[in-house]
Amino acid sequence: MRGYVLRAAGRAVWKETPMPCVGPYDALVRPTVVAICTTDVHLIETAARPTAIGKVIGHEAVGIVTAVGEHVRDFRAGDRVVLPAVVADWRHPRAQRGEAKYHQTNSPYRSADDRVGGVFSEYVLAIDADMCLAKIPDRVSDVQAVMVSDMLATGFSGAERLEIQYGETAVVLGIGPVGLMGVAAAALRGAGRIIAVGSRLRTVELAKHYGATDVVDYKKDDVVSQIRALTGGEAADSVLIASGGEVSDQFTVAMELAKLGGHVACVSGFYGEQSVTIPLKLWNWGVTEKFVTGVLAGAGRDYLERLLALIECGRIDPSPLAAPILRGWGGVEEGLDLMRRKDPDVIKPIVLID
Amino acid sequence: MRGYVLRAAGRAVWKETPMPCVGPYDALVRPTVVAICTTDVHLIETAARPTAIGKVIGHEAVGIVTAVGEHVRDFRAGDRVVLPAVVADWRHPRAQRGEAKYHQTNSPYRSADDRVGGVFSEYVLAIDADMCLAKIPDRVSDVQAVMVSDMLATGFSGAERLEIQYGETAVVLGIGPVGLMGVAAAALRGAGRIIAVGSRLRTVELAKHYGATDVVDYKKDDVVSQIRALTGGEAADSVLIASGGEVSDQFTVAMELAKLGGHVACVSGFYGEQSVTIPLKLWNWGVTEKFVTGVLAGAGRDYLERLLALIECGRIDPSPLAAPILRGWGGVEEGLDLMRRKDPDVIKPIVLID
Amino acid sequence: MRGYVLRAAGRAVWKETPMPCVGPYDALVRPTVVAICTTDVHLIETAARPTAIGKVIGHEAVGIVTAVGEHVRDFRAGDRVVLPAVVADWRHPRAQRGEAKYHQTNSPYRSADDRVGGVFSEYVLAIDADMCLAKIPDRVSDVQAVMVSDMLATGFSGAERLEIQYGETAVVLGIGPVGLMGVAAAALRGAGRIIAVGSRLRTVELAKHYGATDVVDYKKDDVVSQIRALTGGEAADSVLIASGGEVSDQFTVAMELAKLGGHVACVSGFYGEQSVTIPLKLWNWGVTEKFVTGVLAGAGRDYLERLLALIECGRIDPSPLAAPILRGWGGVEEGLDLMRRKDPDVIKPIVLID
Amino acid sequence: MRGYVLRAAGRAVWKETPMPCVGPYDALVRPTVVAICTTDVHLIETAARPTAIGKVIGHEAVGIVTAVGEHVRDFRAGDRVVLPAVVADWRHPRAQRGEAKYHQTNSPYRSADDRVGGVFSEYVLAIDADMCLAKIPDRVSDVQAVMVSDMLATGFSGAERLEIQYGETAVVLGIGPVGLMGVAAAALRGAGRIIAVGSRLRTVELAKHYGATDVVDYKKDDVVSQIRALTGGEAADSVLIASGGEVSDQFTVAMELAKLGGHVACVSGFYGEQSVTIPLKLWNWGVTEKFVTGVLAGAGRDYLERLLALIECGRIDPSPLAAPILRGWGGVEEGLDLMRRKDPDVIKPIVLID
Repeated sequence: MRGYVLRAAGRAVWKETPMPCVGPYDALVRPTVVAICTTDVHLIETAARPTAIGKVIGHEAVGIVTAVGEHVRDFRAGDRVVLPAVVADWRHPRAQRGEAKYHQTNSPYRSADDRVGGVFSEYVLAIDADMCLAKIPDRVSDVQAVMVSDMLATGFSGAERLEIQYGETAVVLGIGPVGLMGVAAAALRGAGRIIAVGSRLRTVELAKHYGATDVVDYKKDDVVSQIRALTGGEAADSVLIASGGEVSDQFTVAMELAKLGGHVACVSGFYGEQSVTIPLKLWNWGVTEKFVTGVLAGAGRDYLERLLALIECGRIDPSPLAAPILRGWGGVEEGLDLMRRKDPDVIKPIVLID
Repeated sequence: MRGYVLRAAGRAVWKETPMPCVGPYDALVRPTVVAICTTDVHLIETAARPTAIGKVIGHEAVGIVTAVGEHVRDFRAGDRVVLPAVVADWRHPRAQRGEAKYHQTNSPYRSADDRVGGVFSEYVLAIDADMCLAKIPDRVSDVQAVMVSDMLATGFSGAERLEIQYGETAVVLGIGPVGLMGVAAAALRGAGRIIAVGSRLRTVELAKHYGATDVVDYKKDDVVSQIRALTGGEAADSVLIASGGEVSDQFTVAMELAKLGGHVACVSGFYGEQSVTIPLKLWNWGVTEKFVTGVLAGAGRDYLERLLALIECGRIDPSPLAAPILRGWGGVEEGLDLMRRKDPDVIKPIVLID
Repeated sequence: MRGYVLRAAGRAVWKETPMPCVGPYDALVRPTVVAICTTDVHLIETAARPTAIGKVIGHEAVGIVTAVGEHVRDFRAGDRVVLPAVVADWRHPRAQRGEAKYHQTNSPYRSADDRVGGVFSEYVLAIDADMCLAKIPDRVSDVQAVMVSDMLATGFSGAERLEIQYGETAVVLGIGPVGLMGVAAAALRGAGRIIAVGSRLRTVELAKHYGATDVVDYKKDDVVSQIRALTGGEAADSVLIASGGEVSDQFTVAMELAKLGGHVACVSGFYGEQSVTIPLKLWNWGVTEKFVTGVLAGAGRDYLERLLALIECGRIDPSPLAAPILRGWGGVEEGLDLMRRKDPDVIKPIVLID
Repeated sequence: MRGYVLRAAGRAVWKETPMPCVGPYDALVRPTVVAICTTDVHLIETAARPTAIGKVIGHEAVGIVTAVGEHVRDFRAGDRVVLPAVVADWRHPRAQRGEAKYHQTNSPYRSADDRVGGVFSEYVLAIDADMCLAKIPDRVSDVQAVMVSDMLATGFSGAERLEIQYGETAVVLGIGPVGLMGVAAAALRGAGRIIAVGSRLRTVELAKHYGATDVVDYKKDDVVSQIRALTGGEAADSVLIASGGEVSDQFTVAMELAKLGGHVACVSGFYGEQSVTIPLKLWNWGVTEKFVTGVLAGAGRDYLERLLALIECGRIDPSPLAAPILRGWGGVEEGLDLMRRKDPDVIKPIVLID
């Protein structure tokens, strides 16, 4: 079979890879739709994770199960499934304290197991299928479902960390596809006012579609003043960082906007040897609560199937994120190129395989 | 001024009452829309709360502030406000632990203070206005806002007690106006499937409008079997009791439907010297978690203003609950009569005063 | 090997059983200390769980690992381990939502797997060893550790359900060994006043030793009045039901004592076809919060190892519960007899095997 | 009456101040014991809060009520009370969402009200006495109680932010009096291992007395390596920053020690125009949870009275913190001097007034 393999910084190629053997708790999945992520672009550019070198990359996909190990209980050949972006180790004892996702020994980019690779591949081995794969309900399309792996898993996990109470005001910095899902997730958690920050016409439209009550353009003026003008000077209850740019700027803006006692959660990756620098006075010199955290996408079948239930029940439709829709395995390189060129029509490139 | 006063079991009358004097932290409010509650009917019928005898009754209203005490900070004459159903004592130290609403020494029906009465009155004294009244945003109508006092305050408080996680399955037993707000609140908290139980055509329509994915008719067949048929035998993550009927039946159905580890919350009042009887096996003979509680409407300006923000931001529109819409103070008795006769077109009778 | 097997209601016998074969994720454990539980007495008397008939019984033990399957990561022959009372299915997707313990397909009394049995046996098969066994620190004795399986796992899980805040008042109804651990757990969660209810001299002493500030004797007078006299009429923040007696009485007393907004958790098993009947007025006719639940012992290596850490760090020493200390496998029947006869010196009978 | 008034940076003097008039909800308190805080030293040195200039300073005291306003319900002349360090505005609507302490319009150093001042004064006006003062139980001494204002209120609030589960490992950086109370609070919340960092002999002894299982000396070697050596490389579940030094160092050490998903809370004040700089990789480049926050001392009668209940019930005795114990109002300047000179025998200087 063929897979898209990271060779070195700046170089990934399609090459023949061995068909993985399926262990007793595993499943083999043939991807039917994959999505392309900015972190793929970054990973290829930098090869920043040494364990990923020589591995197939890609981490957002839906597919069809083609084979299952003898101890797999709930999946069988023919099932439509979501492949997770974060592959947690559900056999780690810390999984029992809700920390499975921090132990990614089965993750494509981190596993020492050579059989384990990413989703840009004709076949993908899913370790511990009963715990990691998510069954797609009939009423949910592949295009909708492929957004669950990472876009919903990240955006909704981010919103969970905001600890939103009914009617509270949330700010979402950045309305790329994860930020848009953050907006939707905040609305579905009961936020009142949701102020999004972004500038591209299509994403501004989508932000409103998903529940933003206001959208502020960071190109027009200072974000903090624009938002304070909207709220009459009132601080936000919570802020989601889903933006790019300079990390300390983003955290500082978020901390300025958040109320004392408020929550700031970051769903963006900021790579390299950077530090985040936050003026202490925004924390009242260290002696007052503002709760700040990074956020990792939620993992595991239970979580992903609950996100799929939201789509199935009509609470959210992520299909408008799919832009452009490419076709065939060649679409992977095409999509990566569009992202590298920061093509203005790209929201989330997906590739239909068959 | 005139008020609708409870005289004795079975008897309430309009009579002249003294104009209350306004203390330094108080406000005087002239109701513009009031709503009528099943608990009003019950209270008149039974006079079950001795402290309510001789008092003006009614607890759901919006109005216009006509005067404020000298220490009132945030309200002034002319402000449109919601009067709360639950009047908590925000000067009780337990308010600091989130227990204000359990201390209703300022409540119309419980206060020893003769100036404090219900809302079926030309003027209402609002004790501790800054803490108890809620300012109505311009974009929210009086008809929408009058539903906040009790219908949203109760339905949303109920949904909060269900501890809903994204995509979970909730059951709502009963789709009167509180149950309908429970449905909406569950959807706005991120529930996936919401199965409502009810039979009246109009409320079934509204349940679907507010987010129910399925509605089961308790008149057709056993509720538990119907719901299990829908879920493939799977238990619900949580159950809201918003139904009438026999209390032990309702709790038992809820406990049968709820998963181990699930939540059951009751927003219905079941009066008299009843007990609730729950078969122990539904709690796995006492040794397994199912979390059960009654629920009191959320109180306080902060909570009510957050519910108003949900209306203002277009997350929910409670105005379809208003049926019928009556006019003038005479509408109060008219509405009470419709409720007593269980008129099939009644959802929530409201009365426009001017 | 020999095991103590349930034959029928009223009859359990020692008999030869087959040596289980050890699967790739399993371990074989040779018990060194076992403890005897009131639920063992009840199970033998009633054979109430049909799946337990023909199985070895007993569910509290520590032992030595004698063999491990090839995929076991963290245990090896010679390790001292706690065997859990609740054997959860950590491969169930609901384990990811914290619900593993509600899925006990690997439990001795519930498993369809004939290899799976209780701990009154020369060897015990531990399914999924890495997730279920708990390693005993050097500084923790076998006698201390055997209390973790069920006494601490249940008492501490109960206290967790009380949602204690620093300095709150908790009531513990019943001071058998689980109630005593409930007292200790409440103190270690930051309770201020802890009022225990019991009458036996030795357990009263132990209740004070573990942190009860007051002990009330239910034989002397009505429990509710005695406790109200102590608190000056103030309600308790939370109540743990760890008592025997009539179930509705226990729940009613607990509900009477608990404040509005308070927590009631039951760690006692009340068997048979009973119901629990609670006067509705204690829930303010259904419309006010009191949070009530049953509680199942916490399960899983992570939880049990945290309880062992509490012993290792000197936060609690459960060894005073061990009374009497019997010796050799014959001690199992001896201990069961003492419990049946309600011997006044029994707290928690344990049996040292070698 | 006389009070110790801040004149300008570097200058505070005893001078005559007007006797405040007591409003209807207020009380007048005559301090009997005051404690001196590092923040007093800092405030005098820098006069960093302009609203404090011209005001009496000091914020930790117990005293005797000498007069109460007509609407005060629960206090009367002669009551022994704790004066709070954080004087929250309990009449702010955000108090209803648990945010009172972020609104300190009644605080000595922030109030525009000239009657409101600090505790280094013969008489202190307590605004909103029923909500702000805490009654001292008979069995609690003045010396114990004076530690509640700030030392316990801060240390226990810090430990609450660590979200400790039974048996978890906590690190406390710094064992001054607040850090020591953080150690005690972590133990009383159920932590297993508690690793404290400090070097002074007496505070190391006290750290062990209050529940530290290990104490690491930051003067001997790198803190991170020493702690990792103790834990076998395992990360801590939570870290409390109660240390001085360079702020970015403290946060960085805390973030290095905390597990993914762990909590870091800062109870130290770091003043001036500093920023905190945290290497992003410790947050896994922004995409993984570590929860970081500053912490403000808990406020309000309910909280302080619960801390007093812990002392009354023998859960903690803070009196060993009192060192040195000075006498008479002159002791205030004496204590400030000892702190300025970093006298090695100082833990928490207190001053007995009569």
